[in-house]
Amino acid sequence: MPFELTILGSSSAIPTSERYPTAQVLNALGRFFLIDCGEGTQIQIRRQKIGFGKIKHIFISHLHGDHYYGLIGLISTFNLLGLKNDIHIYSLSQLKDIIQPQLDFLKGDLQFKVIFHPLNFKKPQLIYEDRRVEVVSFPLKHSINCCGFLFREKEKEANIKKECIEQYNIPIAQIVKIKQGADFITETGETIPHEVLTTPPPSPRSYAFCSDTAFFPTVTEVIKNVNLLYHEATFTEELRDWAIKTYHSTALDAAKIAQMAHAGKLIIGHFSSRYKTTEPFLAEARTVFQNTEVVVDGKTYVIGNKLH
Amino acid sequence: MPFELTILGSSSAIPTSERYPTAQVLNALGRFFLIDCGEGTQIQIRRQKIGFGKIKHIFISHLHGDHYYGLIGLISTFNLLGLKNDIHIYSLSQLKDIIQPQLDFLKGDLQFKVIFHPLNFKKPQLIYEDRRVEVVSFPLKHSINCCGFLFREKEKEANIKKECIEQYNIPIAQIVKIKQGADFITETGETIPHEVLTTPPPSPRSYAFCSDTAFFPTVTEVIKNVNLLYHEATFTEELRDWAIKTYHSTALDAAKIAQMAHAGKLIIGHFSSRYKTTEPFLAEARTVFQNTEVVVDGKTYVIGNKLH
Repeated sequence: MPFELTILGSSSAIPTSERYPTAQVLNALGRFFLIDCGEGTQIQIRRQKIGFGKIKHIFISHLHGDHYYGLIGLISTFNLLGLKNDIHIYSLSQLKDIIQPQLDFLKGDLQFKVIFHPLNFKKPQLIYEDRRVEVVSFPLKHSINCCGFLFREKEKEANIKKECIEQYNIPIAQIVKIKQGADFITETGETIPHEVLTTPPPSPRSYAFCSDTAFFPTVTEVIKNVNLLYHEATFTEELRDWAIKTYHSTALDAAKIAQMAHAGKLIIGHFSSRYKTTEPFLAEARTVFQNTEVVVDGKTYVIGNKLH
Repeated sequence: MPFELTILGSSSAIPTSERYPTAQVLNALGRFFLIDCGEGTQIQIRRQKIGFGKIKHIFISHLHGDHYYGLIGLISTFNLLGLKNDIHIYSLSQLKDIIQPQLDFLKGDLQFKVIFHPLNFKKPQLIYEDRRVEVVSFPLKHSINCCGFLFREKEKEANIKKECIEQYNIPIAQIVKIKQGADFITETGETIPHEVLTTPPPSPRSYAFCSDTAFFPTVTEVIKNVNLLYHEATFTEELRDWAIKTYHSTALDAAKIAQMAHAGKLIIGHFSSRYKTTEPFLAEARTVFQNTEVVVDGKTYVIGNKLH
């Protein structure tokens, strides 16, 4: 089952001719989570040939325009296409006050509900959960309220060895329990340990999105051992004063967070338009965390569980 | 002096991977008029290498999202770039109620004023005028209030013939009057007619933007003899029922308007995303009006006064 991230936009506040404002789509086992929604997101979604109807959950890290100005256009297009799925938006509660007056001007009535879920900017919070996947928001340290998001598979059950089923004549009812962790007692009263009967499940895959933030090591408690980490890197150390002033990170900051969190891989974006190339960002991050990549709009990252 | 139009976006309500929502820039003798501002306009402006600081007047035909959702992002970018020019927006008055709550959320205070000028949806109106250029809005016939815009140079003065200045020994003070239409009386009392002394000025150039509208021949009174006419063509005759239902035009409708207005050249856009190619639009329009072109995002049309 897929667990992969596609970058739709990766500029900082001012888009460039190559980079759209922030937006990403995570395909987590067939669930398409949209993370931030900068201007032009709907155009990028179409270019990536992602079906609009698959997007039902939208996570908005904070209310600077480059992270949400594409939302109204996307909802409008959902409506024009006749989609019927309710849309869940996880954000600062005031987003509703901004979006609603625009919804009132849409062509025709909305055929679906837009349901707003307020984020908690004080502490981590489980904001989405189903049988296989969960999403946790966690506070970042920016000039306004801002959250990151951790997406992770739930622990899977162990795989039972086929040869053991035959060898010990295990009934179907018992198989379910063994997969969940039980031992097995044979007809002769012998206890066969769970570990003997099963192979361990693949470890759950995870992705963390650290949106606009100053250097903030507190997040490493939440995102510990994450397979893939996106962390903003608006500046390099050369402009550390600007990073401090604007509550943004340098590439070095991002790399330190990846290192402290024992992340499998780091991807960086949100580069200031002051920079002509991304090479200085990459070089700086790799001094601390070698497995770093600079994101590119349109690129998909397959998230494995063997990254670290 | 330039009088040229650049297409930034030309899709209908739902953008495609090749066409952005409606936006155009007219460079009229160095004045950069932005006409409609669909989502992604700021990205397209940057791609066209048009300086953001040049845009001071924005004309919004109507409040369907594909014609204005890019406005807040553009204003936000003006602010982030530290621009100081006031921005004049010509639109339905309610646009202010939609934009203001979003302006309140911008990073930092605006360094310039955003001045809204309400359009008249009942009759043509002169909405902008300076020494060289004027802009007239005129009502269209759409499902909501919608205006088109006519941009035109003012009449220029005649050019005085150099050889006449010498021949008749015309003083400088008289030259100004002659250029404006006066005859000249020589020292011997002979009257030299204005027509003898001058060559006529080049006829003023003009551009008309007919945004979303059903077939509406009334507009041809306002845009008569326009050099370049943009007219929406959302459908072809095959889908005339849809055109009627949605208050849009077919390519044939657009061509008839161009013909009735004696336009020099017709360009069409706003094609429904139902169509895979634009060939049927072009073929249909040319049955009535040969000098028709299908617009392409990024293309610039130099507007001459010899088009008709």
